[in-house]
Amino acid sequence: MSDFLKKLGVSLERHAPSPRRKYLIGVSGGKDSVALLHGLLNLGYRNLVVCHFNHGLRGQASKTDANFVSRMAKKHALHFESDKGLTVTYAKKHKLSIELAARELRHAFFARCAKKYGTRKIFLAHHADDQTETCLFNYLRGSGMAGMGGMRPKSKLSCGRVELEILRPMLAVSRKDIEKFAKENDLTHREDASNTDLKYTRNRIRHRVLTYLEKALGRDVRKSILRTAEILSAEEEWMNEEASRFLLSRQLSVKTLRELPLALCRRVIRRWLIQEDVPEPDYADVAEAIRLIEPDAKIAKTNLPEGIHLRRREGVLFLEFPRKS
Amino acid sequence: MSDFLKKLGVSLERHAPSPRRKYLIGVSGGKDSVALLHGLLNLGYRNLVVCHFNHGLRGQASKTDANFVSRMAKKHALHFESDKGLTVTYAKKHKLSIELAARELRHAFFARCAKKYGTRKIFLAHHADDQTETCLFNYLRGSGMAGMGGMRPKSKLSCGRVELEILRPMLAVSRKDIEKFAKENDLTHREDASNTDLKYTRNRIRHRVLTYLEKALGRDVRKSILRTAEILSAEEEWMNEEASRFLLSRQLSVKTLRELPLALCRRVIRRWLIQEDVPEPDYADVAEAIRLIEPDAKIAKTNLPEGIHLRRREGVLFLEFPRKS
Repeated sequence: MSDFLKKLGVSLERHAPSPRRKYLIGVSGGKDSVALLHGLLNLGYRNLVVCHFNHGLRGQASKTDANFVSRMAKKHALHFESDKGLTVTYAKKHKLSIELAARELRHAFFARCAKKYGTRKIFLAHHADDQTETCLFNYLRGSGMAGMGGMRPKSKLSCGRVELEILRPMLAVSRKDIEKFAKENDLTHREDASNTDLKYTRNRIRHRVLTYLEKALGRDVRKSILRTAEILSAEEEWMNEEASRFLLSRQLSVKTLRELPLALCRRVIRRWLIQEDVPEPDYADVAEAIRLIEPDAKIAKTNLPEGIHLRRREGVLFLEFPRKS
Repeated sequence: MSDFLKKLGVSLERHAPSPRRKYLIGVSGGKDSVALLHGLLNLGYRNLVVCHFNHGLRGQASKTDANFVSRMAKKHALHFESDKGLTVTYAKKHKLSIELAARELRHAFFARCAKKYGTRKIFLAHHADDQTETCLFNYLRGSGMAGMGGMRPKSKLSCGRVELEILRPMLAVSRKDIEKFAKENDLTHREDASNTDLKYTRNRIRHRVLTYLEKALGRDVRKSILRTAEILSAEEEWMNEEASRFLLSRQLSVKTLRELPLALCRRVIRRWLIQEDVPEPDYADVAEAIRLIEPDAKIAKTNLPEGIHLRRREGVLFLEFPRKS
């Protein structure tokens, strides 16, 4: 059995052990998702719904991709779902990057498929090299521990009222394993021109930065990054577990917070802000909250995004939201 | 007051608040340590022992450095200590990199000074850009969380029987701050040719890699790295604290280990291996131990460095050391 199928099998056994269940699978038509689809079929996962989303970013090529994936599904007698979104319009309207807008639209599409087919589980084709790139990118933009742990083989994703379970059985599979498997099995796929477009940071990391770092340091940087991700994601899980033991009410006691180790205190505050519907609290917001509870704090109020104020009064922290006009 | 002195002052107030105490200070004669020395004098820290170590790596230049630092100490009526080591010989003998050998010899020298002058506290001139380089380097070589948190403003270092307290009051000070302070105060220093020698990985990171990354990603990568370091070092401290609550005996119960979150389990095993005198247990050693305690483990023994065996028998893990010949 090829390395590709072996590694895929190990992950499936652990995170999606029932081949007869119904699963969605995201298939762009590129090399990775085509390999995943064939790997799954090969290992007996045949109750699959092939989901293809056209981001409306590449004109005629997008249409050809959809046809390509549709034929592939038909050939293997699998259900096929596809839809189209206007990513650029959506990005402008919601002030998002193209990459983020594309992801939101795609996930919403997956959620619709999940409802239609009555399963919440979806296979995605992220692999070890994607993981490396994600972790390095997250490190270099300072997204903290959660980002540096990278993607998980199994994770939850809320899309509106649907909670998807994302399965990534190829996280231990390298790009090389995939290419070998594709070649040995004569798999055809569509080239996504946007993958080689260096204007996307992600692609610069893939095609230039990692190669540069390996050369400059003379060592296998990818391996280091993956190993660190493995350590950090386990530590992240543990710390979140610890932080989740704190029952949170509408107000936080300053005294209680002060007694916590700084790292735990930061996590408790972050969870509290999320619970209280502060939109996407980041490191700076948490740092502001920490400033408020320092023993010699000279301020008792700080501004959070969207007109929300965080205040300290009579030994507690609480939030003030702007009145709706 | 300059940014340099302000930032230096904030750190001193927190980590070394008594200007009248006696402190050692490591002074190579380069820009950073010269600035630190003058900054300390400026802020009233005058009971300083200037410690200069000649690594024997740069021939005549080393001698000139020592004279330069000696004159500087004399000018300010400070004690001066210096010594010389044969770094290349030492590195060969102990199979160390030049950088590691230089550090060990230097630390041993500091420990001798500490004994002679009856103080354990030593100021070192590491600054924010050193910190960034250290963290990035540690990330790219996969040294895990401890390394990625970088250097601490205050840390312990055991050298033989002496425990030094290393103080790094310039960790929030940037290279730019230092250069500005040096210029405004007409400070003279010695250029260390080995700083610009690209054969050292560290220098490649400093002079090339960081600049490259900032350009490739179009963002302030240094800031991200420092922020991540701050988060991770607090989390590291907390997790170590949690792991240290486990009282360790000669044997570890497999059942107890299995009930721990993976991250905590890894840390407990690592502490146990250190306590039991396994030399420098690394990620691979801990991973081997984890394999032994998995419910479906097919092996009951694994090899650690230097002929040490780790075994599982009757529900416990224990070590077997080779007989001394």
